[in-house]
Order: sequence, then C-alpha cells, then structure tokens
Amino acid sequence: MVGVVIQDVERESAEVIDGLAACGVATVHEAQGRKGLLASYMRPIYTGARVAGSAVTISAPPGDNWMVHVAIEQLHAGDILVIAPTSPCEDGYFGDLLATSAQAKGCRGLIIDAGIRDIRDLTEMDFPVWSKAVFAQGTIKASLGSVNVPVVCAGAPINVGDIVVADDDGVCVVPRQTAKDVLKAAQAREANEEMKRARLASGELGLDMYEMREKLAEMGLKYV
Amino acid sequence: MVGVVIQDVERESAEVIDGLAACGVATVHEAQGRKGLLASYMRPIYTGARVAGSAVTISAPPGDNWMVHVAIEQLHAGDILVIAPTSPCEDGYFGDLLATSAQAKGCRGLIIDAGIRDIRDLTEMDFPVWSKAVFAQGTIKASLGSVNVPVVCAGAPINVGDIVVADDDGVCVVPRQTAKDVLKAAQAREANEEMKRARLASGELGLDMYEMREKLAEMGLKYV
Amino acid sequence: MVGVVIQDVERESAEVIDGLAACGVATVHEAQGRKGLLASYMRPIYTGARVAGSAVTISAPPGDNWMVHVAIEQLHAGDILVIAPTSPCEDGYFGDLLATSAQAKGCRGLIIDAGIRDIRDLTEMDFPVWSKAVFAQGTIKASLGSVNVPVVCAGAPINVGDIVVADDDGVCVVPRQTAKDVLKAAQAREANEEMKRARLASGELGLDMYEMREKLAEMGLKYV
Amino acid sequence: MVGVVIQDVERESAEVIDGLAACGVATVHEAQGRKGLLASYMRPIYTGARVAGSAVTISAPPGDNWMVHVAIEQLHAGDILVIAPTSPCEDGYFGDLLATSAQAKGCRGLIIDAGIRDIRDLTEMDFPVWSKAVFAQGTIKASLGSVNVPVVCAGAPINVGDIVVADDDGVCVVPRQTAKDVLKAAQAREANEEMKRARLASGELGLDMYEMREKLAEMGLKYV
Amino acid sequence: MVGVVIQDVERESAEVIDGLAACGVATVHEAQGRKGLLASYMRPIYTGARVAGSAVTISAPPGDNWMVHVAIEQLHAGDILVIAPTSPCEDGYFGDLLATSAQAKGCRGLIIDAGIRDIRDLTEMDFPVWSKAVFAQGTIKASLGSVNVPVVCAGAPINVGDIVVADDDGVCVVPRQTAKDVLKAAQAREANEEMKRARLASGELGLDMYEMREKLAEMGLKYV
Amino acid sequence: MVGVVIQDVERESAEVIDGLAACGVATVHEAQGRKGLLASYMRPIYTGARVAGSAVTISAPPGDNWMVHVAIEQLHAGDILVIAPTSPCEDGYFGDLLATSAQAKGCRGLIIDAGIRDIRDLTEMDFPVWSKAVFAQGTIKASLGSVNVPVVCAGAPINVGDIVVADDDGVCVVPRQTAKDVLKAAQAREANEEMKRARLASGELGLDMYEMREKLAEMGLKYV
Repeated sequence: MVGVVIQDVERESAEVIDGLAACGVATVHEAQGRKGLLASYMRPIYTGARVAGSAVTISAPPGDNWMVHVAIEQLHAGDILVIAPTSPCEDGYFGDLLATSAQAKGCRGLIIDAGIRDIRDLTEMDFPVWSKAVFAQGTIKASLGSVNVPVVCAGAPINVGDIVVADDDGVCVVPRQTAKDVLKAAQAREANEEMKRARLASGELGLDMYEMREKLAEMGLKYV
Repeated sequence: MVGVVIQDVERESAEVIDGLAACGVATVHEAQGRKGLLASYMRPIYTGARVAGSAVTISAPPGDNWMVHVAIEQLHAGDILVIAPTSPCEDGYFGDLLATSAQAKGCRGLIIDAGIRDIRDLTEMDFPVWSKAVFAQGTIKASLGSVNVPVVCAGAPINVGDIVVADDDGVCVVPRQTAKDVLKAAQAREANEEMKRARLASGELGLDMYEMREKLAEMGLKYV
Repeated sequence: MVGVVIQDVERESAEVIDGLAACGVATVHEAQGRKGLLASYMRPIYTGARVAGSAVTISAPPGDNWMVHVAIEQLHAGDILVIAPTSPCEDGYFGDLLATSAQAKGCRGLIIDAGIRDIRDLTEMDFPVWSKAVFAQGTIKASLGSVNVPVVCAGAPINVGDIVVADDDGVCVVPRQTAKDVLKAAQAREANEEMKRARLASGELGLDMYEMREKLAEMGLKYV
Repeated sequence: MVGVVIQDVERESAEVIDGLAACGVATVHEAQGRKGLLASYMRPIYTGARVAGSAVTISAPPGDNWMVHVAIEQLHAGDILVIAPTSPCEDGYFGDLLATSAQAKGCRGLIIDAGIRDIRDLTEMDFPVWSKAVFAQGTIKASLGSVNVPVVCAGAPINVGDIVVADDDGVCVVPRQTAKDVLKAAQAREANEEMKRARLASGELGLDMYEMREKLAEMGLKYV
Repeated sequence: MVGVVIQDVERESAEVIDGLAACGVATVHEAQGRKGLLASYMRPIYTGARVAGSAVTISAPPGDNWMVHVAIEQLHAGDILVIAPTSPCEDGYFGDLLATSAQAKGCRGLIIDAGIRDIRDLTEMDFPVWSKAVFAQGTIKASLGSVNVPVVCAGAPINVGDIVVADDDGVCVVPRQTAKDVLKAAQAREANEEMKRARLASGELGLDMYEMREKLAEMGLKYV
Repeated sequence: MVGVVIQDVERESAEVIDGLAACGVATVHEAQGRKGLLASYMRPIYTGARVAGSAVTISAPPGDNWMVHVAIEQLHAGDILVIAPTSPCEDGYFGDLLATSAQAKGCRGLIIDAGIRDIRDLTEMDFPVWSKAVFAQGTIKASLGSVNVPVVCAGAPINVGDIVVADDDGVCVVPRQTAKDVLKAAQAREANEEMKRARLASGELGLDMYEMREKLAEMGLKYV
C-alpha cells in the first residue's frame, strides 16, 4: 500500500471552495458540527492568510520528502498540499524551491504535520504554510510514500479532494461530499452572527439576547 | 461551591491600575518580589498590547463557555476577564462575538488558560488576549461554573479585583491589597533603570557599575 | 571546572562570518552536511533578523544570570552571546539593560536555551534573540558559572569562537575550523539554487529537472 | 451526527482476534505494513497485559462520560472499549465502577485518549487500560456523544469492529476487513523470527545473516 | 516575603487524616466537589502507596534545596512535605539522605513539583514520592526560600496544615477547614459505591441503575 | 562525515567501570561536578537495573536502524550501545532480535534518544534500555549513519569509550579521561554519605550536622 499515486481526483467547484475560505475556520468548523479541526499545534508561518483548496495528500516517510516532487505534478490550480509523515517528525520537508514549483502549478498553500523552512522566503512569496514546527533540518529522497491516499494529519482524517480551510485560527477539513451543505450552513451562520454582533456592540447582553437567565436560575445559579 | 456569582467587587483606582500597566510585566513582577507570573505558555495573540485591569474571574467547566455570558454582565469599564477551566482544556471558549460584548462593557482584554479563536477579528478590534492556545474548537453551554470566585490560572492564584498586568512578556497578577505599594516600588525601579541604561549604553560594564569584581574573585572566579 | 573565564579566543574573519549570515540557516545547515542545528523550540522574538557572529558562551546555573555580566566584558564587536543553563530552566535571564550593555560592546544578538524578557524593548533596539521561552521570571546573582567553555545549547555542542548563524528558520552552529569550507559550499549551493528556482518558477517539474522518474519507477512507484 | 448509537456491528472471529493478541503489537504492526499504531503517549496502567478485541468506539464530549454507559450495553464478550474525546482532554472518564460493569459484559480492556482513574483497583481486577494520562479529575453526564461511529484515537482512525491489539509496547488497530490476512502475515513473521533469534543468539551477526556487507560498502561505508 | 519560617501550624486530627487516606484520591476529589487535584504530571515513583498527611510547605528557589533542611525541623509525625519551586524546574531536590532525615521525624512522604533522585533507595525505604520528574541533577544551597507559606504546587494552592492525599491516581489537597466535612462526604460516597459495584458486577446496566434511558431519549439519542 | 565506522576504541578497565556502576547515577553525577546527565525524559523500560559500560555510539538517520547492525559487530563484552538520531524521532529502532544479537556479544544495555519496542521480551532477557519513548513504529534500512563518532544524546555529548552509567534515576556519562578520578571522588562521597545517613536516621538534623543555622540567620531567615 506504499508507493501509490492516485491520479483520478474529484474536486469541488471553485465557488464552494472560495465560499468556505471566506467563512473562515471557526465558522466552518461550527457549521459542520464541530468536526474536522487539525490539532492546535498547527500554526501559520505568518498571520493574515485565509485560504481554502482541494487537498492533494502526501503520506511521507519520516525525514524523506521525495514524494513531494511526485505530488506537485498532481496539483491543479487551487489545490492545497497536505503532508502527513508516517511517524512523528519535525524535519523541514519543504522550503522555497518546492514552494516555487508548487506555486507555478497554482497551489494555494501547504498544511504539514512536520517542519517547514525558508519561512522568510515563503512569506515574501505569499505562500502560506501551517506547520507543526519551523525547523531547518533537511530531509532525504530515499524511500517511497504515497500520493492522494487517505491520511491522518495532525489528528484529522483527510481524503484527496476534501476541502482544507486555513486561517489564523488553524486548519479545518471538510469532506468533499458534504462541502455544499457545510457552506450553506456556514453562510447562514455568518448572516446570523452579523445581526448578533450589532446587538452585542450596542450593549445588549448575551444573557438577554439568548434568553439564558431562566435556565441558569433553574440549574441553580446564585448571585451573592 | 459551583454555580455562584459574586457581585460585590472592590476595585483598585484607575490611577494605580494604569500606573502598573505603564511599568509593564517584567518590572511589576520584580517590584513585588518575583511573584505573580502566569506560566510562560500564556502568549499574546498579537504583539504590542500593554494593559492592566481589575480581574473578573471565571471558573469554567472544560469545553463549556456558558459562564462567560454571566461574567460579562459583571464587567465594569477597565476590567479584564480571567478564564480558568477546572481541568486542562484548549478549546476556543471565546471569539469575536463575546469580545464585541465585553468591549461594549469597557473590558480591556482577556486572560484565558485555554484556547481562543477568531484571532484576526480580535486583532482588528484591538481586543488583546493572552491564551494557552489558538484553537477554533467550539464549546457548549450546558454546565454551571462560577464567577468572581478565586481561581488558579496558568499556575497563579487570582482573586476578583486583583490587578492583572499583561504585555508582550506575558501576564502578572498583583493582589489588590498590595497594589499601591507594588506600584510605588515599580516606579522607583523604573527611575533607577533609566539611569543604569544610560551608563551601560555609554559602555560602562555591569561588573564595574554593580561593583561585582571583588565578590566574584572571592567566590573563586578565575580568568585563564 | 566551574568558575572559569577563558579569555584567549580565536575568531573567524568578518568576511567569512558575514558570508555565512547572508546564506542563512537552512543553506548553511545543508552545506555542512545537515549538522549543527539547535532544537526547533529555539524561536526568534521577532521575525526578519538574519545574523551571524562568533560565539561567546556562558554555562550558567539555573535561574542565575551573574555570569552574563562577566561574559559581556569578553565581547568583541560582531560576537553573539550563547547562554546554556546547566539544567532545564525557562527563567528570563536577559532583558533590556543587559542588551543595552551587550549592544554597546558590538554584540549582534543572543541565543539562549532558557527565557527572555523585555521583548518589546529588545525589538525596538533591533537586538535579536532566539530563545526557548519568553518569560518575565527574574533570576539571581549568587553562583558562579563559566564563560567561553564548551556548552551544549538546545542539543547542539558549541565552542567559543564557533560561528552561530540565526534567522527566522532557527539557529545553526558552524565549527570555526570548518567555517571557510562551509561558506564555500553554502555559496555554491546558493548559486545552484538560483538557477533551479528559475526553472521551477517557469513550470518545469522537479521530477524532470532532477531526473527522478526512472528511479521512482524502479523502486516500484505506481500511478493508478 | 452527534447522538447516534450504531447497533449493527460485524465482528471478526475469536480465532483471528486471539491469534493477533498472541503475535503482539510490534509484530502485527509490521505485518500490516507499519500502519495502525496509536501515538506513543498511550501507555498501559500496568505491564504484562497482552489483549486483542473488537472495538466498540465512543466519540465523547470533553469531560463528559455519559456515553460510556450507553456503550457498555453494546458490548459483547471479547470486545474492547475505545474512547476518543472530541477535543484534547485528560480527565478521568473511567474508573472501577465502569470497569466492573464492562467486565460483567465480557469486555477485555479499555483504550482511552484521555485520563483514567482508580488504577489500583483496575490492576487488582485485571482490567487493562491504555491511556494518555492517569488523572482523578471527574467528568459529568450532560451532553450526548456517539457510539460505534468512526473515531480518530491518539492519531489512528478506528472503526467499530476493527481489531485493537494492545500490550506493553502500545496499541495497534487492524481494520476488520484485512484482519485475516494480517494474522497470516504476522504468524509467518513470527515463525521466521524464531529462527533468526536462534542464529543471532549463537553469535552470528546481522551483517552476515542479512548479507548487508556488500550493500553497505557500495553505499560508501568506511571502516577507519 | 522570602526567608520566613512559620512555626505555628494547626493540624487536623489523625483520625480525619487517616480516614481520607483510606478513601483515596479519586473519592476524596469527588467528595469535595471535584476540586484540589494537582496536575496529572505528578506521578508516584512506585505504585501501591496510599497516604495522607498534614502539609509542611516549602517555597524553594529553582535548583536550591537549602530550605528542605529548614523544613525538616518543622515536621511532626504524620506530616507530608510539599515542595514548590518558584519557577519551573526539574532538578532533583531530594534523595535518600533527606528522606532518611524526614522519615526519622515521622514524615509520610513527599510531593514535589520538580525532580526526585535515588528512587531505588526511596522505594526500599518505603518513602513514597509524587514528582514531576525523576532526575539526578543536583541542587545547591545558596538562597533563601520560605517554609509553611502558601504555595501553588502543580497548579493547586496548598496551605500549611492542609491535608494532602496521594495514591496511584495522583495527589489531591483538602483545605484543613473543610476536612471533616469532606471525610464525611467521601465515606458516604464509598458506602454508596459498594452497593453499586455489586449491582454492576451482577450485570445490571448503569443505564438502568441510574435511570438514564428517558433523559437520553429526550436529548435526542438515536439507536440505529 | 556520514558513513564512517571508527574501530580503534580505547576502553577504561572493568574495575573502574564496575566501580562507577556500583556508585550509581546520582553519586557519579555529583562526584564529577554535576555534569554529564542525559535529559530527564530518558527512562528505563523496567526498574532495578544498574549498569555501566563503555559507549559504542551510533549516529543514525531518523527512522533508519541499519547502523545498529554495523555497531553490534564493534561491541566488546561490557559495552553499552548509545543511539542518537540526527533529528528528533521516537520510532522503535531496537527490539528483541537486535537485543539477542547484542547480548550475544556481551552488551550490557542500550541508551537510545528515540523509541524502543518488544519491551516485554527485553525485560525477560534482562536487557536494560533507557529510552525517550516506547513505540512499536518500525524503521527502515536505507541510509548510512556513523559508528563511534561523537554524538549528542538527550542533550549530553558522548564520545566512544566514555563510560555510561545508568540506573532508575536516569543516565550519566563520564569522559574516559576522567573516569578514574571520578570513581575516586564518587567512592569518597559514598563513604561520607554512609556516616551521614546513620546520623540523620538517629534524628540529628541537617541544620545541625551541616552547621547551617548561623549562615541562614545571617542571610536573614526569620522564624515566626
């Protein structure tokens, strides 16, 4: 099961993907029932990026980035690379040369449950990365892994073509099959939040707006 | 002892509180005898904020942010929210809606021994947060906690009305009872540092300025 | 063996040191055979700095920064301070006063396997620091350590006069004896990368540029 | 998708399950292509247990063990409970009362990506547990989770009915669909190892037994 | 506030203390409202010990165990030493010589939010220790701390004379003022558990015994 | 510099090595000036072992255990294997087959800054191991490393032929050049401790035995 490149990938429409990016990680995560978050140790190398894309997945041996070259050929414009090592590793699998190559194929960013390097160059290139570590430790090209197989990345299962959403809050994955529904729920949530934000900004309390007082009293909350 | 909201809160004067903010965490911490620091994992979501305020404390169940709504009603202008979960948790208890509500009450920021989300919005709102994690994982509203009871937050005991000082170096708590004295000591320390800084900048050595050479020789320091 | 200050230090030429700084951590690390990196938890207090300098090393007791004053006297223009506590510690050994003094001697920055404080001031002073933690916890001046003895800092052995290179990717140490050769290798690597970057940016794949396809097929990679 | 109990569970035969237990985690893991291991932080509460069983999975809210009662009703003799909180948590979800109830249904043990308590009692009962933490912190019964849905436990995806193998080395999951084949491969591996062990014990070197010398020389290994 | 030894200590009766020991950490923790646990990283150096005693507290500088000698003089038979460093530290403050001295005074064990050493000797002496680390790194005797002042140990506030309960599940502190009530609640809880254990062992389900089915259905639990 | 096997190894006499083993880690560490300890995360797979031996070092690529076979050929009776990966890794490099082979050569144990597996078998074989993790994750045999080169293992520099001492307290390394002197100092320390132990066991206080009272008073210690 190692040494496989799956080429037949179904992707969600750009409209749905870009819609999810606009909603952001926190909203999308809520909209799909509080699921799909990658671990909190996945942090962006610079703040301000907010992207979504179809996952091109890499299952890589620890400390070996050979499969990244294989995966780059599989990229379509709008994709996001997802690298999951097969055992814990914080080596720097990816730097500015690979980013140049991926960006030339239209890649929107990288999610890696390991290390990243050349982060100054990547920042200048506007190539966003969410990683477990920043680490210059290099890798080799000696063993096969697989491309576009299912992976578990930072605790979340990701399949090729799933939509990965990432921003300053972290990374969330949406299964391709449910992406349209999640987008609808996320947009409804956003509309609803806009109204709440205005009321809260004017000084109305959540206790009143959400009618919580009675239930809190019932459960025994006491003011002293 | 769970399910209590203490409403009668004594606060220190704005003058003392703002004085402590101006001194900053490192100086205040030294001035009160190297006590009161929260753990080093408490990091700001953006750099450059330097605030102080009276603590409104929340003892919250893990993954349940119901009490935050209750606490917001208790906020006065100039307060800082302090959230301590009753067991280790990095869920995102707090985001832009709650920040909007807290800011409408004059809240100056949040200290949370758990996760925070919507950090891009919070940054744009100038609502500073010091947290253990950035994590979009949502919370529920199912269980009671308490408001304004004593808590241990990131290793430091905090009582309601204590002064919380926070900047890029982290977070320090000053008991309300000693705040005036600590301010005096901190300001004296600052004045003293100004003079030392000038001498050191001119090239004078600490070895000479602090008259350390003799004591070091006595203790056996050898130059080879 | 504690309580020693070694004063006779050989330093590499400014040309070699500055050449290594220009190449950056990731390139230098590769050029010397993937060795010399400090642990990935060593992070800069602000992004954008890229420096190199001769190491002036401090072996310090936990929570005691007395030896820093002793070491500052030993600094030459272009040096970098390296502080390694003798047991794990995240106290803030170093702040703006010490930085003022070190900068007056021409020091280019600090590498510390412990905590740092006053990071807002240090940022304004353009005094870069790579540390294990940001923590305002103060230290004392009670015990001797040593200056310019060999240390292990964040997992890497460092000798006085070794060249420390640091940037956004972390910190790498180059033994003084091999610095010239490493610089040559690093510059060759850089020249070579420039060309590769152009080809990759134009859309050429690494698979073709590095002629990987045949070897991958031999090892059994299958496209499905 | 929360609040579901799946009752229709296919289980592998006792023969296959017990065969996998006899092979142990390290061998089973190798036999299925170095996949399926849970994270190394999953440690047994006592040494010496070696079990396998069909997974009955619980997706539980953080700090809420209500679903464990629901899951116990679904247990068949020979099953192993697998508890995965929906966000990181080290509370003690499970103690001697729940173990008594589970053991009465024939449950062979517990895998929990959170905390465990009453470990002295559990040890006396011969009820083995692999957990992320030992922690007496209690949980509540306020929110729904799900039983027998797919979970990610300590980084590994687990489906109901998958075979969980656990011993002093940790925990490995084998998908039910491939369990027979994996058992065959594991037993072949064991037979083969027996012979190797005898040769190595007699002093034969791996270098010779595996005929490595030539390949090492080719790759450039030098004896000096 | 550093350099103080408080000698006037009120202790709870042996009957209450031993009663709490017999109940164990998990039960006592529940009986006092799920409070008072030290962090889960506090682990025993050997399994099987179950003790309780009056806390004699030590606030110690990092890496300096001088105050331990001072505290030993303050020990009464039945006490437990509690060591909290003023900044994070895993040095080995305590070994077999100090244990010999403490045991001669009737000390029942040690709780230390730092390192411990000589654990083989301590095990042979039946001197139980709960610590953050096992580490042979030695300490010095250079700076003052305080004895019997309030401390925060592994996240829990502890006052002199509070009852510390410790067993294989970890460590829990009971304020002296509430110890009698907590004991009563803990013993009631134990009696009640005995009965439940028998019913669960006979195969009765928690779902029925606790009458959970109706409430679960109301909240929307679905069996499929 | 990768791909080298150094064969010419100087070893300390069995008398010195066995003497150091008898003193144990804590005493040896003190006797050589509180130096040479490996990080506290290095824990034994079973308690009770106390060994010392000449280090045969392995610098290994992450996740690749090929060099272990090469190193086993270099073992003499009484040696201890020391494995240091070139980047952080917790894979299981070593199990019962390799232990069988090493034991056949007279190897006394293994120190590995990575993972270990088959720990039940290793325990039965009385082959002690100190490791960073227990993890069944397998490794490959694809890349060269080096044998008997200097390594940094768990933060401590180790050279071939250095004496490694390990027991329940952890691991300490003694440079071969100083081993005789360290043994002498350690034995003196032991003799001295025996006497102190007797006095402390009889109830004499350290405060008196070490004549600390006057110095404490001078430094300002106050009894209240």
